[in-house]
Amino acid sequence: MAQETPRNWFTERCEEHGSAFSLETARHVYEEQTPYQRLDIYETTRWGYLMTLDGLVMLTSRDNFLYHEMMSHPALFTHADPKRVVIIGGGDCGTLREVLRHPGVEHCLQVEIDERVTRLSEEYFPELCEANGDPRAELHFGDGIAWMKQAPADSVDLVIIDSTDPIGPAEGLFGEPFYRNCFRALGKGGILVQQSESPLLHFERIIQPMHKAMRAAGFSHTRTLHFPQPVYPSGWWSATMARKGEPLDAFREADARARPFPTRYYNAGLHQGALALPQFMLEGLPE
Amino acid sequence: MAQETPRNWFTERCEEHGSAFSLETARHVYEEQTPYQRLDIYETTRWGYLMTLDGLVMLTSRDNFLYHEMMSHPALFTHADPKRVVIIGGGDCGTLREVLRHPGVEHCLQVEIDERVTRLSEEYFPELCEANGDPRAELHFGDGIAWMKQAPADSVDLVIIDSTDPIGPAEGLFGEPFYRNCFRALGKGGILVQQSESPLLHFERIIQPMHKAMRAAGFSHTRTLHFPQPVYPSGWWSATMARKGEPLDAFREADARARPFPTRYYNAGLHQGALALPQFMLEGLPE
Repeated sequence: MAQETPRNWFTERCEEHGSAFSLETARHVYEEQTPYQRLDIYETTRWGYLMTLDGLVMLTSRDNFLYHEMMSHPALFTHADPKRVVIIGGGDCGTLREVLRHPGVEHCLQVEIDERVTRLSEEYFPELCEANGDPRAELHFGDGIAWMKQAPADSVDLVIIDSTDPIGPAEGLFGEPFYRNCFRALGKGGILVQQSESPLLHFERIIQPMHKAMRAAGFSHTRTLHFPQPVYPSGWWSATMARKGEPLDAFREADARARPFPTRYYNAGLHQGALALPQFMLEGLPE
Repeated sequence: MAQETPRNWFTERCEEHGSAFSLETARHVYEEQTPYQRLDIYETTRWGYLMTLDGLVMLTSRDNFLYHEMMSHPALFTHADPKRVVIIGGGDCGTLREVLRHPGVEHCLQVEIDERVTRLSEEYFPELCEANGDPRAELHFGDGIAWMKQAPADSVDLVIIDSTDPIGPAEGLFGEPFYRNCFRALGKGGILVQQSESPLLHFERIIQPMHKAMRAAGFSHTRTLHFPQPVYPSGWWSATMARKGEPLDAFREADARARPFPTRYYNAGLHQGALALPQFMLEGLPE
């Protein structure tokens, strides 16, 4: 039912696909031009806080659990014993929090280029930053591409690329040269996981080339998983995993069932379900 | 990248949840006040044709396959031998087409209240109406609630409620009195499946009460499945199945794998995956 009161809306247009998504805002609470991007925070009427970077939705309080749980738990429960984790990007610290819920993780380094994203998240999304003080957490502010170039071989169990879209500063995080450095840094059975955009909108432009580039970089196995993410274009999102020498279909299912921490989206059945791909994706991806 | 050319957008606001979804339109090609509702057709720039009823998105050419496949194939492959199918609503005929892809179906009756929806679909979504001339198809234009009241006991194997939201004409399709009539009409192992809105936005208001009402109406088993649906609020949608006397978890998996027709979303793995519920839903629904 339409209301007569004037209302404010933040709108992100996906020009390429002729769609747009809007959230009703109560207040525009913060704006800043950081050294890397324009950062805005809005208080919405129904979705908690909203952070945008260069006018694109990064996260809201209400639905970020979907993305953060699916960027972390499937990969962590697939690796036999992940101890050393590196997050590239992930400045809102939500992925870091999920990673550190796993008691076996000994060290999690977050390499975010823009410190302001993290500082503002501490202020507006404190629940996501709960684990920032964990002794296993290390926050490094710098270039993830450069960091990965110098990472020692066989020094990491899991790399999570929790970045913005492949335009602007994050472009170098999508492609074979970067994946080669990840491949080198990963130990035996090591896993790389990267957000890979919308199955409906970006299958040909992002997901298929990502598999190709990951395999060209040396990864023997690649798998995409999918999940809802209402505030991103099409409301349907994906993450793509790549692994050294071992498959990605099986996971530590008993551990996932007995996980000693709460989740809102993830569980063992859902993990399996997220790996079950739509027919059009099955037909267009390597075995 | 913003473009300078003036552009037109159709926007549906979900006032209750402070969100909105828009599609860029090239032309507003048709408008009519039918006896039941306001019907508009737009030509969009990237999503083919768009039909709206009372200003709410019903379907687009680009993404309706998700909804239509998931409203039909899971229930059809769960029933041991579905021969007699009734669709309540479904005026765009997309569900009818998917049902009639199953060679075992002998008769599919579609009971749509608004004939204009079907006539306009024949014009703007001809691909969805391909099966309208199938000798097994029967198009009846009338009130689904009244039809179900007079349906003989044990006369149907599968009832698909492919309706608009539970406001206005479709309100009576959500709730125990209607479900009781469905229960009576269904034969042994018969299945009812109904679209049940967004897991994120409508879990407490629609999905939980639907399970309760279905069980109160006599159904021993209920199960929700979920899938992406970009043009509906939150981009994440669900269907809820109810069954007489038999569980809903197992399905004819071998038949689903060997299905003699093409799909774009549905497959056997996906069927299983769609039944795997997020943790917050598992915790809030009956076994």
